[in-house]
Amino acid sequence: MFRPQIKVFDCTIRDGGLMNNSNFTFATVRAVYKAMCEAGVDYVELGYRNSKKMFSPSEYGVWRFCPEEELRKVVNGIDPRGTVVSIMMDAHKAFPEDLLPREKSVAGMVRVATYVKDVDKAIRLCNDAVAKGYETCVNIMAISHEGGPFLDEAFRQLEAETKAKAIYIVDSFGSLYSETVHFLIERMQMFVKTKEVGVHFHNNQQLAFANTIEGIIKGANYVDGTLYGLGRAAGNCPLEMLLGFLKNPKFNIVPVLDVIGKQIIPLRETMEWGYTIPYMLAGVLDAHPEGAMKWMAGPNKHDYAEFYRQITEDPEQ
Amino acid sequence: MFRPQIKVFDCTIRDGGLMNNSNFTFATVRAVYKAMCEAGVDYVELGYRNSKKMFSPSEYGVWRFCPEEELRKVVNGIDPRGTVVSIMMDAHKAFPEDLLPREKSVAGMVRVATYVKDVDKAIRLCNDAVAKGYETCVNIMAISHEGGPFLDEAFRQLEAETKAKAIYIVDSFGSLYSETVHFLIERMQMFVKTKEVGVHFHNNQQLAFANTIEGIIKGANYVDGTLYGLGRAAGNCPLEMLLGFLKNPKFNIVPVLDVIGKQIIPLRETMEWGYTIPYMLAGVLDAHPEGAMKWMAGPNKHDYAEFYRQITEDPEQ
Repeated sequence: MFRPQIKVFDCTIRDGGLMNNSNFTFATVRAVYKAMCEAGVDYVELGYRNSKKMFSPSEYGVWRFCPEEELRKVVNGIDPRGTVVSIMMDAHKAFPEDLLPREKSVAGMVRVATYVKDVDKAIRLCNDAVAKGYETCVNIMAISHEGGPFLDEAFRQLEAETKAKAIYIVDSFGSLYSETVHFLIERMQMFVKTKEVGVHFHNNQQLAFANTIEGIIKGANYVDGTLYGLGRAAGNCPLEMLLGFLKNPKFNIVPVLDVIGKQIIPLRETMEWGYTIPYMLAGVLDAHPEGAMKWMAGPNKHDYAEFYRQITEDPEQ
Repeated sequence: MFRPQIKVFDCTIRDGGLMNNSNFTFATVRAVYKAMCEAGVDYVELGYRNSKKMFSPSEYGVWRFCPEEELRKVVNGIDPRGTVVSIMMDAHKAFPEDLLPREKSVAGMVRVATYVKDVDKAIRLCNDAVAKGYETCVNIMAISHEGGPFLDEAFRQLEAETKAKAIYIVDSFGSLYSETVHFLIERMQMFVKTKEVGVHFHNNQQLAFANTIEGIIKGANYVDGTLYGLGRAAGNCPLEMLLGFLKNPKFNIVPVLDVIGKQIIPLRETMEWGYTIPYMLAGVLDAHPEGAMKWMAGPNKHDYAEFYRQITEDPEQ
């Protein structure tokens, strides 16, 4: 029933950090890490290793930078049972000098997030991380806006020029349907032969879990989820459902359920993620969620007809 | 881009009525009806035509019975623009004598909901409705518990013995994945040759919309949705996303967005539907949502590990 090759990534703290400037409490991060180790989740992404030249530490919490001493405190005394710590570096917001050699780091995996246009920066970061001893992945963001020759070239370069374990399709805007998921994976597989396919989906149209299943059916072996779907705007594929679907007996769902009830549900008092009409409309229209997030923070958040008018208004007319 | 044969059913009031004993205000029902007419939705199901012998009118609201005089007040003065009123009759809770001839009724469509075991009752109700001049559908509930010879027999009988427009796959427990949707539709199509396939999905695993898309890909032309997913427990396929996906230019999404903001969002103060961990677990385990609904109404609703322990406890050990 299950495919042992599939690796599950929890990125609750990393993607959820896009909703609170990475300002999670230490207790929450440690509880999430502990639960992932107990649940048998393969990787747990505790934040970004982005540059303080690009983000002000007075505005952003520590999980935007993941300094080694903080990571060390998180994992201290917890049996990892095979769970590997991951950090994400944005191709255009991170620098190689912020990454220590693997043996001096708590992290074992570095994921590089990139737009197609920044793929050369991503390759540089990825190769630096490989040289320093890390496992790596490259995550191609906003992929719903791609599909032409530059995407093919990015696939070709990533295949030829990196040692990444997986290349990810990232549906940043939550606009893909099963047919577009199939199309993009088939396209990638034309060029990427020696690396795994990864999938990271957003839930604007409540399709993050469904699209992850479709990815798995097409061969993706690196799959992302977050606890209770916590993530930017409509959030991500809920990790708890993914584990139920995968049926790998190595997973234990009880610590996952427990940490959701104790750590994630209380966050809803100060953070609003998940399905809303503005996020859905942004997904249908393949638009960045920023406009919808602004609308949701405004005084007329349930005036959906007005938001629709604004988001579909043609500025050239 | 669009398939003109596809008929969209709104069943907000009918399925949502399973969360509030069909106690919607008249103003809400009329506003939903008006919005569906303006949006170009093909059918709007305003409730059940079940028997007062089976449900006490002191406990259940008027939309559990849909008396003709109430339906007439709902539609009075509103241009239907082609939208047809539907009512649902439960095979084991409704009787033919409660159905007037079509020309004396506001409804044009009767949908008969049935378990496989009650299919003979369903056929009797369906044929009575056809004889009285209505369009009909037969909705096979709890279909995730079926798949053996009795389901085949039901398909065979419904094909041979009724004039239903469509036979529906109803995932009452929200447990189907795309593979099981494909399987069930292919199975139905082996026996049902002269009727359309219909699909009605629940959202326990956030798959109601995705499974509806999969149904459409496999040929389903009768598809159900509800406003903002309002329906029993985790709810249904959100109608607003369905219209976005279908791309039929006859649909107008603005009245749909508007009625959600004005009528459906306020209901969340007194009704809790949508994704929760207990509903999700019921879906994964293919169980009736009743236990999860009871848990959600109790004092420890976020103690998910304990709910999981109870729902997976083997009573025979």
